[in-house]
Amino acid sequence: MTKGRIFSGMQPSGKFHMGNYQVLNNWIQLQEEYDCFYSIVDWHALTSSYEDTSLLPDRVLNMALDWFSAGLDPEKNVIFVQSHVKEHAELHLLLSMITPLSWLERVPTYKDKLQQLADMGKEINTYGFLGYPELQTADIILYKANAVPVAEDQIPHLELAREVIRRFAHLYRPVFPEPQAILSPLLPGVDGRKMSKSYGNEIPYAAEPEDLKTRVRMMVTDPQRVKKTDPGDPDVCTIYTFHKIFSANEHIQIADNCRQAGIGCVDCKKRLAEQMIATLSDVHSRRKDLATKPNKVMEYLAYGAERARKVAAATMQEVREAMNLSY
Amino acid sequence: MTKGRIFSGMQPSGKFHMGNYQVLNNWIQLQEEYDCFYSIVDWHALTSSYEDTSLLPDRVLNMALDWFSAGLDPEKNVIFVQSHVKEHAELHLLLSMITPLSWLERVPTYKDKLQQLADMGKEINTYGFLGYPELQTADIILYKANAVPVAEDQIPHLELAREVIRRFAHLYRPVFPEPQAILSPLLPGVDGRKMSKSYGNEIPYAAEPEDLKTRVRMMVTDPQRVKKTDPGDPDVCTIYTFHKIFSANEHIQIADNCRQAGIGCVDCKKRLAEQMIATLSDVHSRRKDLATKPNKVMEYLAYGAERARKVAAATMQEVREAMNLSY
Ligand code: SF4
Ligand code: SF4
Repeated sequence: MTKGRIFSGMQPSGKFHMGNYQVLNNWIQLQEEYDCFYSIVDWHALTSSYEDTSLLPDRVLNMALDWFSAGLDPEKNVIFVQSHVKEHAELHLLLSMITPLSWLERVPTYKDKLQQLADMGKEINTYGFLGYPELQTADIILYKANAVPVAEDQIPHLELAREVIRRFAHLYRPVFPEPQAILSPLLPGVDGRKMSKSYGNEIPYAAEPEDLKTRVRMMVTDPQRVKKTDPGDPDVCTIYTFHKIFSANEHIQIADNCRQAGIGCVDCKKRLAEQMIATLSDVHSRRKDLATKPNKVMEYLAYGAERARKVAAATMQEVREAMNLSY
Repeated sequence: MTKGRIFSGMQPSGKFHMGNYQVLNNWIQLQEEYDCFYSIVDWHALTSSYEDTSLLPDRVLNMALDWFSAGLDPEKNVIFVQSHVKEHAELHLLLSMITPLSWLERVPTYKDKLQQLADMGKEINTYGFLGYPELQTADIILYKANAVPVAEDQIPHLELAREVIRRFAHLYRPVFPEPQAILSPLLPGVDGRKMSKSYGNEIPYAAEPEDLKTRVRMMVTDPQRVKKTDPGDPDVCTIYTFHKIFSANEHIQIADNCRQAGIGCVDCKKRLAEQMIATLSDVHSRRKDLATKPNKVMEYLAYGAERARKVAAATMQEVREAMNLSY
């Protein structure tokens, strides 16, 4: 049996935070079970920041550094820059011909984002901005992905992708599988709410060890567990959410200990802080090292693009045949 | 001094009529003065007929047969199928990022065509249909054309192209020249009005000699010229409009003769009919011959695509550099 196929992308926005690290961590786990295509989607970045693109080359390189240093394997996964694979544009154009305008207009994130940008005094009502979820659809189905790791708010985009796939199959013939969502939970802030700078509850990705210790100490635990002798519930504990990411080898044991009151919250936090410091300092030093070899990073990306193109070209061949465009 | 650069395209609609022949004739004249890029724009055909594409391969081949047999030279011009040059899709996508939705919504042909299709019971309100003039813009500027032979009703599209070019130059840097329109007059019907099947005044492209003679006899001449001894005005005469196309070598002499009452309208019509019969029978027999060699036709198109791609790739390199997308 062949492994499932995954596509996911991230915009090179220039900001990398703990939430992105968690997504990467998720991807790294998926790389063992699936054929994974992970893309730095630079064309998407243009939908909202076409006005100043001067930082884009730097941001693409930095995103690649973040990915590789976090442990995303350029051999196990196909890791590439979207604009290096022109087939994304061709498929986007072809899909645009069969997609009713109204389908794009009613994607909830469209009106929301327009409003959000308007509030910031930015008016980005371009043709490309409206086509954003159409380009996402093309990204996913170009590799015939049958699973897509997404955050909750991206579900409507995936729904659009499925509608477009069904329309394509109806008009021509089935070429694409309908991708299923793999929901990635969002990493909470120290207070258990959504992590956000405006709440002041975030854990900075580049935090120094002492700072990390302080923030971990501030994290909320199972509120029902008052005394060390009370059994705890790791599933409602923020500390435990972080253990799942940073203590991959022992988090099941930690959960057992917690449930049996075999470990106190103070010790548990200490262990997490140690794990986070160790893991992140490894990541940061790998990143520092890799940053001195930008050519190597670009070579990885070129290698990924080459592999992506092979799959994309085969899909486009099928698409053209289905649409009677192969002559 | 380098010659000017021209781009023009035609949709493989499956219908070829005298009006198309006149456009081709115009293109053939331009091929001497300009570097010409002529494209069978099959992606455009999808904007309004994505629902049934089964005839498309045949229509593309037939359009190529029409073009080559009419005398469009595959060596002097770059003649190719749009979908063979993927850069059209890439540039279209990039332009979509900088083009306000409202610019596309206000193109007059957009609302008109929507209405026209609605009257025919067809509802084609797709994302790609709205993007039609954006794709045309990409077609033209990909080759840095500075002139575009167009019919009157395409002027708003060219205006959009110029606006997009200026916006690109303003946001990044000037890469594209602003193309000028070369207006191609429309060929009238036998009654001097716009040629149209609904008026019953058309001259079928494949008309038999006797039929052609009859239709030419029906054509209106200078209404002020009553007797053969009256001087005529060829510029208001439908016969003369056709002479300009079919009697290329002697139309100036015919005009002089007319103005000096040196030729009668009956003879003038006879001469036109002879010229049309001779020219069209040559074209039709070349077409019949070429139709037995579809591989040769496809080779011409492949050769054209290869040449087009070279120019397109160079332009895209510049575009990517201007937009900070070359890494
Ligand atoms: S022991 Fe650990 S997992 Fe259990 S409640 Fe305390 S901090 Fe959370
Ligand atoms: S002589 Fe010929 S050009 Fe002159 S009015 Fe008659 S038909 Fe027309």
